[in-house]
Amino acid sequence: MPKQERAEETRRRILEAAQETFASQGYQATSVAEICQRAGVTKGAFFYHFPTKHALFLALLEDWLSQLDQYLNPDRYLGNNVAQSLYAMADLLKAGLTQGRDYLPMFLEFWLQAARDPVVWQATIEPYRRYRAFFANLYLQGMNEGSLCTADPSLAAVAMVSLALGLLLQGLMDHESVNWEEAAPAAFRWVLSLMAPDPATTP
Amino acid sequence: MPKQERAEETRRRILEAAQETFASQGYQATSVAEICQRAGVTKGAFFYHFPTKHALFLALLEDWLSQLDQYLNPDRYLGNNVAQSLYAMADLLKAGLTQGRDYLPMFLEFWLQAARDPVVWQATIEPYRRYRAFFANLYLQGMNEGSLCTADPSLAAVAMVSLALGLLLQGLMDHESVNWEEAAPAAFRWVLSLMAPDPATTP
Repeated sequence: MPKQERAEETRRRILEAAQETFASQGYQATSVAEICQRAGVTKGAFFYHFPTKHALFLALLEDWLSQLDQYLNPDRYLGNNVAQSLYAMADLLKAGLTQGRDYLPMFLEFWLQAARDPVVWQATIEPYRRYRAFFANLYLQGMNEGSLCTADPSLAAVAMVSLALGLLLQGLMDHESVNWEEAAPAAFRWVLSLMAPDPATTP
Repeated sequence: MPKQERAEETRRRILEAAQETFASQGYQATSVAEICQRAGVTKGAFFYHFPTKHALFLALLEDWLSQLDQYLNPDRYLGNNVAQSLYAMADLLKAGLTQGRDYLPMFLEFWLQAARDPVVWQATIEPYRRYRAFFANLYLQGMNEGSLCTADPSLAAVAMVSLALGLLLQGLMDHESVNWEEAAPAAFRWVLSLMAPDPATTP
């Protein structure tokens, strides 16, 4: 294996081992030695890639966010107009519920660390600010083209991002009580109908 | 101080010390000895009240939930009908944002522990199930009296509880970016308008 490939493979193994260990026993209780053992790498290799456990934690957060960003690209859903794209995006919640289960402990760990650490806090809240801005912008675009109607695009963005977050969290925590994979997109579309009629139910 | 009062005072001090210590360094990393030291009580006194650290953790969770329940009593908000009560309840989010700040680390800790521990999990998800049932029931009542109109009360309850959770979490994590104390009730009322017109804006 060429040297660069080997280094990337090592980095990936450290990230995987760290995610598993943080998820099962928490960030604070996990040592660099444990991560190295699980990943099967030397401490030398670890510190070549990550100067500190904290840097590794932030790298995991960044990896996770860039995966989310790929899903949130509106070009992937673009129908004839913004309203149609938004209704199609509701199904993202289904994917989030399926794929999010492995990430939930890490996700909660980020938030818990964020409450204690300004750097993690900044990295954790930044995407929510970005999502709210992204949706506010999309709503404006929909209003301009005439496919959406709302008195306050910023408030609508706050509501839709909050709704999605609450649906994902409850669905990931308690997947037994409700059929979340149906209920989450349905709830999202119900609230979307405040801004535009559902193309699936309108003749 | 009479014996029973002294015992209650000790119990309260242990709970306070535990909440502070769990919040600052996490549940896993906190020892019973540290809680005793912070509370200024002996280990004997600790174990008289709580057989384990885990039992103490669950007692904190119960205390917190019973505080929430007091706020969610619809009799406190009862206007002329269910729709009016719901619009009035939107202001609960403002109180949640003000008072929740001290509880956020504990709240995240509960969720993180819930992902690892079936007893904590049960205690953590139960209130969300209860809130969803509570609101579904309230919506049915509103439909029967004619003040609300919705096709699916259960779905509306899922949406409203999710919305409230997402608003509180973002508002508690990131109180700088948005005026959450205004935006949270406004977003809640905006979604409520799917079921009944806002009495404040209807002539």
